[in-house]
Amino acid sequence: MRYRLTVNLETQTIDRSDLPEEAAWLGGRALLDSILLAEVPPTCHPLGPYNKVIITPGLFAGTTMPTAGRLSIGAKSPLTGGIKESNVGGMAGIVLGQLGIGALVIEGESASQSLKVLVIRQDSAELVEASELKGLGNYDTVAALKKRFGQKVVIISIGPCGEMKMAAATVAVTDNDGRPCRHAGRGGLGAVMGAKGLKAIVIDPQGARPLKAVDAPAFAKAVKEYTKIIQSSKSTAFLQENGTAGLVDVSQARGSMPTRNFSAGSYEKKDAINAERLKELMRERGGSMGHPCMRGCIVRCSNIFNDQNGQYLTSALEYETIVMMGANLDIDDLDTIAQIDFRCDDYGLDTIEMGATLGVLTETDQFSFGDRNRAIALIEEIGQGTVLGRILGQGAVTTGKVFAIRRVAAVKGQSLPAHCARSIKGLGVTYATSPQGADHTAGFVTEEPLSREGHTERSRDTQINVIIADSLGLCQFTGLRAEHDLFARLVGPLTGKIPTETDILSIGKDTLWQERTFNTRAGFGSGQDRLPEFMATEPLSPNDTVFDVEDQDLDRVFGEYPKS
Amino acid sequence: MRYRLTVNLETQTIDRSDLPEEAAWLGGRALLDSILLAEVPPTCHPLGPYNKVIITPGLFAGTTMPTAGRLSIGAKSPLTGGIKESNVGGMAGIVLGQLGIGALVIEGESASQSLKVLVIRQDSAELVEASELKGLGNYDTVAALKKRFGQKVVIISIGPCGEMKMAAATVAVTDNDGRPCRHAGRGGLGAVMGAKGLKAIVIDPQGARPLKAVDAPAFAKAVKEYTKIIQSSKSTAFLQENGTAGLVDVSQARGSMPTRNFSAGSYEKKDAINAERLKELMRERGGSMGHPCMRGCIVRCSNIFNDQNGQYLTSALEYETIVMMGANLDIDDLDTIAQIDFRCDDYGLDTIEMGATLGVLTETDQFSFGDRNRAIALIEEIGQGTVLGRILGQGAVTTGKVFAIRRVAAVKGQSLPAHCARSIKGLGVTYATSPQGADHTAGFVTEEPLSREGHTERSRDTQINVIIADSLGLCQFTGLRAEHDLFARLVGPLTGKIPTETDILSIGKDTLWQERTFNTRAGFGSGQDRLPEFMATEPLSPNDTVFDVEDQDLDRVFGEYPKS
Repeated sequence: MRYRLTVNLETQTIDRSDLPEEAAWLGGRALLDSILLAEVPPTCHPLGPYNKVIITPGLFAGTTMPTAGRLSIGAKSPLTGGIKESNVGGMAGIVLGQLGIGALVIEGESASQSLKVLVIRQDSAELVEASELKGLGNYDTVAALKKRFGQKVVIISIGPCGEMKMAAATVAVTDNDGRPCRHAGRGGLGAVMGAKGLKAIVIDPQGARPLKAVDAPAFAKAVKEYTKIIQSSKSTAFLQENGTAGLVDVSQARGSMPTRNFSAGSYEKKDAINAERLKELMRERGGSMGHPCMRGCIVRCSNIFNDQNGQYLTSALEYETIVMMGANLDIDDLDTIAQIDFRCDDYGLDTIEMGATLGVLTETDQFSFGDRNRAIALIEEIGQGTVLGRILGQGAVTTGKVFAIRRVAAVKGQSLPAHCARSIKGLGVTYATSPQGADHTAGFVTEEPLSREGHTERSRDTQINVIIADSLGLCQFTGLRAEHDLFARLVGPLTGKIPTETDILSIGKDTLWQERTFNTRAGFGSGQDRLPEFMATEPLSPNDTVFDVEDQDLDRVFGEYPKS
Repeated sequence: MRYRLTVNLETQTIDRSDLPEEAAWLGGRALLDSILLAEVPPTCHPLGPYNKVIITPGLFAGTTMPTAGRLSIGAKSPLTGGIKESNVGGMAGIVLGQLGIGALVIEGESASQSLKVLVIRQDSAELVEASELKGLGNYDTVAALKKRFGQKVVIISIGPCGEMKMAAATVAVTDNDGRPCRHAGRGGLGAVMGAKGLKAIVIDPQGARPLKAVDAPAFAKAVKEYTKIIQSSKSTAFLQENGTAGLVDVSQARGSMPTRNFSAGSYEKKDAINAERLKELMRERGGSMGHPCMRGCIVRCSNIFNDQNGQYLTSALEYETIVMMGANLDIDDLDTIAQIDFRCDDYGLDTIEMGATLGVLTETDQFSFGDRNRAIALIEEIGQGTVLGRILGQGAVTTGKVFAIRRVAAVKGQSLPAHCARSIKGLGVTYATSPQGADHTAGFVTEEPLSREGHTERSRDTQINVIIADSLGLCQFTGLRAEHDLFARLVGPLTGKIPTETDILSIGKDTLWQERTFNTRAGFGSGQDRLPEFMATEPLSPNDTVFDVEDQDLDRVFGEYPKS
């Protein structure tokens, strides 16, 4: 039986309870959303005591299934003001799952000046004072905590930006190498953890063992089938060879790569930042491609990037970071991008939101396209919390607001990631309508990218299917989406409670509707399901296309929502 | 027949057309809202070309009625993201009314670097280039324009904060003495005008004559009745003697005077900032009380405040400014407050929003309660557009967002004015539910101030009645609210089309519903009809009361809305 740990920072109490029977099939995003909707008042202040940080491993996390140990972290978002689930790799999902923890709920807030660390062991959990970590980056935090609690601990932590309650602050999770380089990046969850006065969660893997399925043979058989699908997929081979950086050329080819603050869809210097260039540098300096972010991953899209001296600089250098800091800022240099990536990981900052934010800042006299040193210096200002840094740390929308800049690529307060809506209009529908704000992982629709029609159902279906993956703990790079039958044959043997395909589909439907409901109660109307005005009026090269999906088609995503 | 001027800054064209027949009874806020709802896309960017600045004199403006020349200025607000009508005194309403202009609509946007002035004469209107005014304060702008266009012109203008498109930027209107000291203060309308590249509107009063009523004797008779009511009212005598500063003692007595960033409802040093102190200084230095902001006013609540040398410093020193800059910042000194007021008028900044903003800033290391010099310096930073100044110029919510401050007294992005919601709960219901955001002029409900019940209908009725006054052009200090019968006896003879009392009431009802509709389409849900969380949890002294009106009572304001 999976259990729930409820940690109250105000009362300093930790409560352990079994997950309810009806949550048998729920993990990850589905379980998180159901707790958030039930327990967090939608109009509460995101940085106040009534918000909760909810951490849920996917349903398969901790089992013998590979590439299925994703972790959901969520709260009411200080960035969007709505519901937020941010999905992260690394080792925490697996270890929490193996320890039997289905949900970890952080509530209340510490007395001011206090800074706590939560230590979770096989049979115990405690809050310890850790004021000595105040202001430390994630790398130093992890080093200090490993020194105190042992080298094998898995750590969830925030950097100074989370402590400063910035809306672009992330929650870091240590990867398979023990580095804090996997991030629940979007939506400012680091700020919520910071507001509670919780610097880190240390998970001691002592005693953690793979979860046993109720019907082990049937589960093993289905896992084998699942594994085979992934291993035989072209996408897996592509990601192992190129990492997500391989998408630079793909994105360039379809004209959907944000360039110079979303003013173009392709980048004339893309060869300086693509996978070929990345691999060339790796051949020169060491580092590696095909690296797993979590133990046993069979996709292995991660990488390690070394500096000019062959020393570790950052992991992983991902497509989103490369494009948002590269093409979008006209920085045609992977070394600069890697230095920014390292700082973002260390300070605890979302690289997507930061790339968008610096893009907006180019419309002021504070920054110009291509200014590598200034880009690094600005990220450092954020980590230091200067006045300018405080603005930028709140993300692209606040930066646009402060400087009265109109061209801000964001929906519901969250910046667009590194895929242009105007040249992948189905994805644009997802950006507009997802309760998460603009998010490529919320439902990547690639069909008929330049058509203005037919995306309503595609986006809705994809959003629902993505939630199923996010709830089971599957990495989206497994490529599995609508295999509800296979999922049913995995969930049944694991839990001993056999679902139909329809039951699996209902997990996605119900959860998406819960997210929508939370946002509605928080004060969102359908007028928020829109892309920024400039995308409807400013054609994007090279396709010379605007975002012209009709408002009514956007409203139909939820207006005609199919309840379970 | 009243006419409409439509001025397009992009095409540099000016179009003149008659107001439609069905607008016969509509002026001010009602006419403005109907145009805004029909012509401005609710999801447009407030600083973009699709927003419009709409300027409408009240229906009675320009007639022989005294204290009835109020002017409505509106747009989609860059502060709230919703509909905004800000109501202002001064001479522009009367003169526009006398010239027969029922609506002035500013649309499009100038080419960048261009700065225009609109010049309106009896039979003509033109846009002229005025780059030489760039960056000038309202006082210097008015001086330059009078030099160019004559001393008698009436001027509507923006200061540098409007040019910088700050969300707390005002639109200034010259008063009866020709000074730019009456402001459409709330909602950042100055920024919208700035975004269009329009620095000022010069109105030449040459040829302006009081409007003739269709049935002149009947109109004169009703005006006489109206005048008598105002002249015999105790409130008129009180305002003539004390100005709105007289409310300091009233507010203190009921414990509703925001003190130290809304942490208390009374101020132990209130004698240093009340009307008695103000009058004492006037006796010493000159200046005057009982001053009219517009010609012929019979209330005369305005005043002129001189500095220690007996020189003009500012006009008028109002209750809202005194309390938001005084008690709310613990600045117990009218001279400092007057210096701030002058700067706000000159730069074009809403003193209410600024007082709230500096209150929020006391929770950072940038400002402390009572620091007079720093308060002045911070306002100057805004006028200069420093990085910190840009933050503050966006208002209290953005300032709270940037610095991650939770105690921000605001609704829908607009700060509460100088009346605490927790100790006047009916007003709190108005703050929460008004489509305008927190606004004391949207429906001041004073009955049973500490009761949590019974305010839904009171607030709704008062909001509707206030709109009628704002549409007719009546100053709220006439004290007239629900005199629908008298209003009908004024509107009928003036327009020649006789309304019933129900028709008058419908103007208010329909308009309030239009405002709600605009906001709904802009993306607001009822979760936005809430006061800040801290007001529900932090008791306010001296009444030790929280805001505890039930959410469902707030939702009933529009949930049970009585359509016409």
